[in-house]
Amino acid sequence: MQENNSIGIVAPQIAHFSAPLKLKSGESLPQFDLVYETYGTLNADKSNAVIICHALSGNHHVAGKYQESDKYPGWWDNLIGPNKPLDTNRFFVIGLNNLGGCHGSSGPASINPATNKPWGSTFPILTVEDWVDSQARLLDYLGITQLAAVIGGSLGGMQALQWTIAYPERVRYALIIAAAPNLTAQNMAFNEVARQAIITDPEFHGGDYYAHGVVPRRGLRIARMLGHITYLSDDAMGEKFGRKLKDTIKYSFDVEFEMESYLRDQGDKFAGEFDANTYLRMTRALDYSDPALPFNGDLSAALKNVTAQFLVLSFTSDWRFSPARSREIVKALLDNERTVSYAEVTAAHGHDAFLMPDAHYHAILRTYLSNIETGCNHAK
Amino acid sequence: MQENNSIGIVAPQIAHFSAPLKLKSGESLPQFDLVYETYGTLNADKSNAVIICHALSGNHHVAGKYQESDKYPGWWDNLIGPNKPLDTNRFFVIGLNNLGGCHGSSGPASINPATNKPWGSTFPILTVEDWVDSQARLLDYLGITQLAAVIGGSLGGMQALQWTIAYPERVRYALIIAAAPNLTAQNMAFNEVARQAIITDPEFHGGDYYAHGVVPRRGLRIARMLGHITYLSDDAMGEKFGRKLKDTIKYSFDVEFEMESYLRDQGDKFAGEFDANTYLRMTRALDYSDPALPFNGDLSAALKNVTAQFLVLSFTSDWRFSPARSREIVKALLDNERTVSYAEVTAAHGHDAFLMPDAHYHAILRTYLSNIETGCNHAK
Repeated sequence: MQENNSIGIVAPQIAHFSAPLKLKSGESLPQFDLVYETYGTLNADKSNAVIICHALSGNHHVAGKYQESDKYPGWWDNLIGPNKPLDTNRFFVIGLNNLGGCHGSSGPASINPATNKPWGSTFPILTVEDWVDSQARLLDYLGITQLAAVIGGSLGGMQALQWTIAYPERVRYALIIAAAPNLTAQNMAFNEVARQAIITDPEFHGGDYYAHGVVPRRGLRIARMLGHITYLSDDAMGEKFGRKLKDTIKYSFDVEFEMESYLRDQGDKFAGEFDANTYLRMTRALDYSDPALPFNGDLSAALKNVTAQFLVLSFTSDWRFSPARSREIVKALLDNERTVSYAEVTAAHGHDAFLMPDAHYHAILRTYLSNIETGCNHAK
Repeated sequence: MQENNSIGIVAPQIAHFSAPLKLKSGESLPQFDLVYETYGTLNADKSNAVIICHALSGNHHVAGKYQESDKYPGWWDNLIGPNKPLDTNRFFVIGLNNLGGCHGSSGPASINPATNKPWGSTFPILTVEDWVDSQARLLDYLGITQLAAVIGGSLGGMQALQWTIAYPERVRYALIIAAAPNLTAQNMAFNEVARQAIITDPEFHGGDYYAHGVVPRRGLRIARMLGHITYLSDDAMGEKFGRKLKDTIKYSFDVEFEMESYLRDQGDKFAGEFDANTYLRMTRALDYSDPALPFNGDLSAALKNVTAQFLVLSFTSDWRFSPARSREIVKALLDNERTVSYAEVTAAHGHDAFLMPDAHYHAILRTYLSNIETGCNHAK
């Protein structure tokens, strides 16, 4: 059945932007590329576009496969496709790799045209605001004035919220999933440990490891292992691994428990694929994101000018971005008399639940999205 | 007032054991030293001895100072002294550094008499059971047949529980604070990340870094930073640091938030003082500790032969060893019709609360300990 409603074979595209992008840090990027994919068909009045904002380690390959033999489809394939909750018979869906990423958009590993060398440590530190600005540039490039919806989970949800603040007239609906108005001190502390593991890896070379032909693999591996603990709930880890031994106890520092094997595998895999400089920048953008900061911490004031309608959704076992944090967003929207639906989904999987095809969760998304009007010219 | 009831100036002592200690791993230590301190006076019938079992990074210096100019007293000084909750006018208190430690007891940095070189990677991996066996040897050495009480928090509490299982006739009271019958998968996962940070540090040299004149400081620093996150509650971190900036945002990977500065300082300090091989062994002992394992997970069966009376105490905000885990111990004791008091203290500080002089917490300990009889010959 999954096969029958898959979007099928997809291909990435590259958009080049030659006008500079001014960044929140004061720096600016003279030019940049964004790699993106689209699914479904843009309708005649261009009213059915949905942008997907990705989280820390996500990218533009959101649904479908590049070739039939691919082991896995895009990272949110369970959500997106013909007759899926985000129905590509109705919507034109855009996935992109955030600026600073390592999957095709301009990032630290890209060549800086001014030096003809990888940017490395000199690639700017980006913010959620910068990402949304660059995404707006992508919409301009595609000729889309207004989004039917912006959707994101986790860090992606923080971008979705920023869309409604920075470009209220360009967003009709915002789906903010497993997110928060900002990180707690504990969230930021986990990010800091991950960054310090990378930065103190002797092969980091101050961020200019490309020139040395090495990567700070050890640090990135530790960062990812740690990340995985925070994506799963204590209960989910207990259910999945518990205290299960690989074998009899060997009294060693080798793998003794199954959970150790899982974490090491996840860390090794990630360290072989992802760019450490991108990881540093993604975590920093998370740390900085705080729409209420210019309003003395008053989130209601920060959301005063939003006009979108909202679905805010959280998961009971998510201890990284707990339901209480989602309710802060809901409250601030209600303070402004905005239209907001809120769902707190009972799910055991912790923060990672936003990526899983939980029936209740998907039913909520399906219903909400089916009520979004896409004009009379949609491509069904 | 603190000064008036301080135990004052104390001094460590060394006990040497020349008979081998058989370990749970099958190995045995041919001989070993334990460094310890005592506070108060052993009474004539030797019925007033209390042993303090330490946690992951603790040691034998539990109370008092070595000299007036010491910046800090022992790590549980707020609990122990004349007229303090653990009153040294009544009790003879013993603190020791666990075997495998790095504060004077035989450990990985000690000289292996068989090779005249540091043990390093060849120092055995110890268990909670081994520690309690070595502590029983220390009692023999001191001529003490039975403890009035064994007290421990966190990993120390797991040792206190093991005392009642392995030596039921030698323990009258057990105070098990902020502990658990075993680690959850999440607890073990944090330990694994910490160990991998140490082991993959290029200066670890397979555990034999002493010979290279280096220490795996980077890895140990990461391990400690991570540990600190788990010792504090999310709320406590929020209250202590929140999102407070050190200065204006600099858009860098240097310290931006106060919490980052705190974590780095804690990590640096620890990495300069503690031995990485000891840290590895302490976390492994935590992982392995599971009295119910030989009983197919049935903790009640594991505690069938205990005879001590128990105080089990937990803290509401402790997410590392949550109150639910303490209640598992209470339930298993009640299943065996043992005498057990249970207190769940409302405290904001997370796991670290067991080290803090919370008034309610200390009042419970004071009352419980004051009801422990110490014979007619006590040295008041």
